[in-house]
Amino acid sequence: MRHKSFDRMTCPIARSLERVGEWWSLLIMRDVLHGVTRFDALQKNLGIAPNTLTRRLGALVEAGLLERRRYSDHPPRDEYVATARGRDLNPIILALLAWGNKHCAPEGASVVLINRRTGAVVDPVLSDPATGRPVTDPDYVLAAGPVAGPRTRQRYGVPPSRRKRGVA
Amino acid sequence: MRHKSFDRMTCPIARSLERVGEWWSLLIMRDVLHGVTRFDALQKNLGIAPNTLTRRLGALVEAGLLERRRYSDHPPRDEYVATARGRDLNPIILALLAWGNKHCAPEGASVVLINRRTGAVVDPVLSDPATGRPVTDPDYVLAAGPVAGPRTRQRYGVPPSRRKRGVA
Repeated sequence: MRHKSFDRMTCPIARSLERVGEWWSLLIMRDVLHGVTRFDALQKNLGIAPNTLTRRLGALVEAGLLERRRYSDHPPRDEYVATARGRDLNPIILALLAWGNKHCAPEGASVVLINRRTGAVVDPVLSDPATGRPVTDPDYVLAAGPVAGPRTRQRYGVPPSRRKRGVA
Repeated sequence: MRHKSFDRMTCPIARSLERVGEWWSLLIMRDVLHGVTRFDALQKNLGIAPNTLTRRLGALVEAGLLERRRYSDHPPRDEYVATARGRDLNPIILALLAWGNKHCAPEGASVVLINRRTGAVVDPVLSDPATGRPVTDPDYVLAAGPVAGPRTRQRYGVPPSRRKRGVA
């Protein structure tokens, strides 16, 4: 075992990490989400051993992030397509891209996110759709959710719904 | 070694994953960024062995994500403070939170992001600050950056700056 399982932790961050499983998983999802869907192409692109790739793809299918789709019957060949749950990983992957370009690319960016209508390079920001403001603003904080246990409540305070009622 | 090093990969996503190192690192950064900064509190909160925590904190200091700050001389005690590079991980952590709440919390959320002025629960979106639109919109695509090598160019096409000049 690579690590203690995070599955019993109720923190949604820990659970996401448990589900995604290994760094390879995110790189596989990066490729699938950006058009590399076949085993041979994935293997070439990632440069990993076929048995490792087979195992990771199986785990991603089992976790409900990818689906197998047959594209050839003779010989039998599958490609991998992201499910809705898998597609929702894209913001995490693009946030990693932005961080990597800012902090781990002293020589300049090798891959960037662009708006293809304008050609502009985009530095994406995680924001609150209700206000348009970045969630790195100090107004945004973590709070205990509706099913928080005693430890989480103690740490983050009362759930926001109660707090809201208190204010109203 | 847990995995092949991603360091030689030029992809900024792979480099970010290499730098962050292990899942534990993101959980440690989650805690430090949300106010848990002392060894004992981190250890209790994460439930990991002290020697593992010492090793991971050392790696995060070395990677430039955390700084040690002495808060007691007798006995000598340090706390851990995020650097600018470490603080910039917050969007990644909050994107993991949003994904976990949506896909790995069938019983409801135990931790949520709120706007503390309004008490509203926030479902953050990664967006383009220039247009305000989510980068999951099909207009947003990856492209080869200024220092892309031949393989990356082949995969993602010409860098956007050249494309832009071509259009103009």
